[in-house]
Amino acid sequence: MGATGAVGREIIEVLHDRNFPMESLRLFASERSAGKTIETPSGAITIENADSADYSELDIAFFAISGGWSKANAKKATDAGCYVVDNSSAFRYDDEVPLVVPEINTDAIGDSKLIANPNCTTAIAAIPLYNLHREYGLKKVIISTYQATSGAGAAGMSELTEETMNYLDGKEVKNKVFAHPIAFNTIPHIDSFQDNDYTREEMKVVWETRKIFSEPDMAISCTCVRIPTMRVHGESIVIETEKAISPEDAKKLLGETEGIDLKDDIENNVYPMPLTATKKYDVEVGRIRQNLVFGDHGLEFFVCGDQILKGAALNAVQIAEKL
Amino acid sequence: MGATGAVGREIIEVLHDRNFPMESLRLFASERSAGKTIETPSGAITIENADSADYSELDIAFFAISGGWSKANAKKATDAGCYVVDNSSAFRYDDEVPLVVPEINTDAIGDSKLIANPNCTTAIAAIPLYNLHREYGLKKVIISTYQATSGAGAAGMSELTEETMNYLDGKEVKNKVFAHPIAFNTIPHIDSFQDNDYTREEMKVVWETRKIFSEPDMAISCTCVRIPTMRVHGESIVIETEKAISPEDAKKLLGETEGIDLKDDIENNVYPMPLTATKKYDVEVGRIRQNLVFGDHGLEFFVCGDQILKGAALNAVQIAEKL
Repeated sequence: MGATGAVGREIIEVLHDRNFPMESLRLFASERSAGKTIETPSGAITIENADSADYSELDIAFFAISGGWSKANAKKATDAGCYVVDNSSAFRYDDEVPLVVPEINTDAIGDSKLIANPNCTTAIAAIPLYNLHREYGLKKVIISTYQATSGAGAAGMSELTEETMNYLDGKEVKNKVFAHPIAFNTIPHIDSFQDNDYTREEMKVVWETRKIFSEPDMAISCTCVRIPTMRVHGESIVIETEKAISPEDAKKLLGETEGIDLKDDIENNVYPMPLTATKKYDVEVGRIRQNLVFGDHGLEFFVCGDQILKGAALNAVQIAEKL
Repeated sequence: MGATGAVGREIIEVLHDRNFPMESLRLFASERSAGKTIETPSGAITIENADSADYSELDIAFFAISGGWSKANAKKATDAGCYVVDNSSAFRYDDEVPLVVPEINTDAIGDSKLIANPNCTTAIAAIPLYNLHREYGLKKVIISTYQATSGAGAAGMSELTEETMNYLDGKEVKNKVFAHPIAFNTIPHIDSFQDNDYTREEMKVVWETRKIFSEPDMAISCTCVRIPTMRVHGESIVIETEKAISPEDAKKLLGETEGIDLKDDIENNVYPMPLTATKKYDVEVGRIRQNLVFGDHGLEFFVCGDQILKGAALNAVQIAEKL
């Protein structure tokens, strides 16, 4: 559902790439797109109208339209016996709905027919953080993000491209998708502001990490910043741990963690970057060092993850694989 | 000295703009540039060879060539009775040489003829941090930066422009100034790596903030990241304070601080950005909120400062004004 959007299109690719055992793949989108035929790695498929889907014919539905649409349609699907993997934030904070990063908490699925996919920024940080938490106990987590324009969908990337061309041509730079021009700029504002003056994007990281880790009181904060990149969110992360931690041990642990590509060879200028993490399933982790503020109970590192993949499409397909 | 470089050119502008009381302005650069005449707001001036300057004819010299050049020439200048404001890192960590942000520690100058100008990233964060430190006592400071390409001089900006055009034209993107292509990328690596796996740029913030604040043991850490912007460094800052602190009181304090432009009106999407901080003397501070990790003893905020101005040329001229 939402097969023509940035995440929908990526789900189609990932299903094919990972050889997901499909009897048939059906694509749904808004009425506007219904009837059009699109080429996919699984063959040419005609888009159907998502509003009139008969869920009794479907085993698993990926929802990637909008929160409102998910809210209006999820029950219809699950009542018909169809699993729903929802990419929106509609159900993420619902105690009845599991919020799942497959490397971490598949157990949480239980017999729920509806499973929520976390926010991209959460999913990318969760992989390294969870393993550090299990071994060393996280006391404090402080995150600052470097988020790509595709976090706002395909329109975000187009806006960056267009604005950049206009800027370089000396023409006026107009914005529509973002609150301000993003070309050669940074915007410390993603999603709406909350009562505590954090943005919703920042609070998503807080709420979702606590839920996925089953640590409702975890001390965690986040500043989310949009920067002029196309794909891949970067995150600068500082942690304080219960047990003493050394960068060497952390590198060993994270290097052996499923879903992580350790990129930590500073002598050869190897560290996580959008350039290398783009279209990669694994999250890149590097610049691992002993944090100067928390000393031998602190670690500082940088991660880069393709937020359309691990932050959305890949995580959704991984959930379906577990189902 | 270094009149044709990015910082040198800006010093010329700032001297004129701030009506600095000059009997004469003389411009020096490398032998290659000597003899050329350039237009300045203070008239057309012929460049002289910096290596053969007679410092007995000069009252104040701004050094903006390189650390090596400063080391080789500073004593010659001060011995001749000329003040030197050095923009390089050559003397910043020398106990005998004052490192000055004029809003903070003019007292440190004493009768020294040689004064060091801090690193851009340090200078930008120092203004808000110092005032918070004086009122609330800083216990911990955690910084992640969003640094513009002009931090690497005019060549850095040219490289970003050229790479961006090539990227958008589908051509190969080659890098020379930075360790990797910077167009639509982020590079968590500025200056050389140190033994503790922090970069020198990150440690400059640690060393220099401690020195300027006269707090040799201050708990402070930093992750420095190059992003594809032209001018202005952004910094995401989290602090823990000795005394309880409220965002309201912090906004009042910072709003009244010399050198700060408070940009904190989230209802109207007003916060610090390179777009608005470019070519501005004041450092923009905003997104001020109670940090979720340190609670009522913690604050989180975002700053943007033109690193060629407050981070270099402006700070140097402000030091000269004090002299």
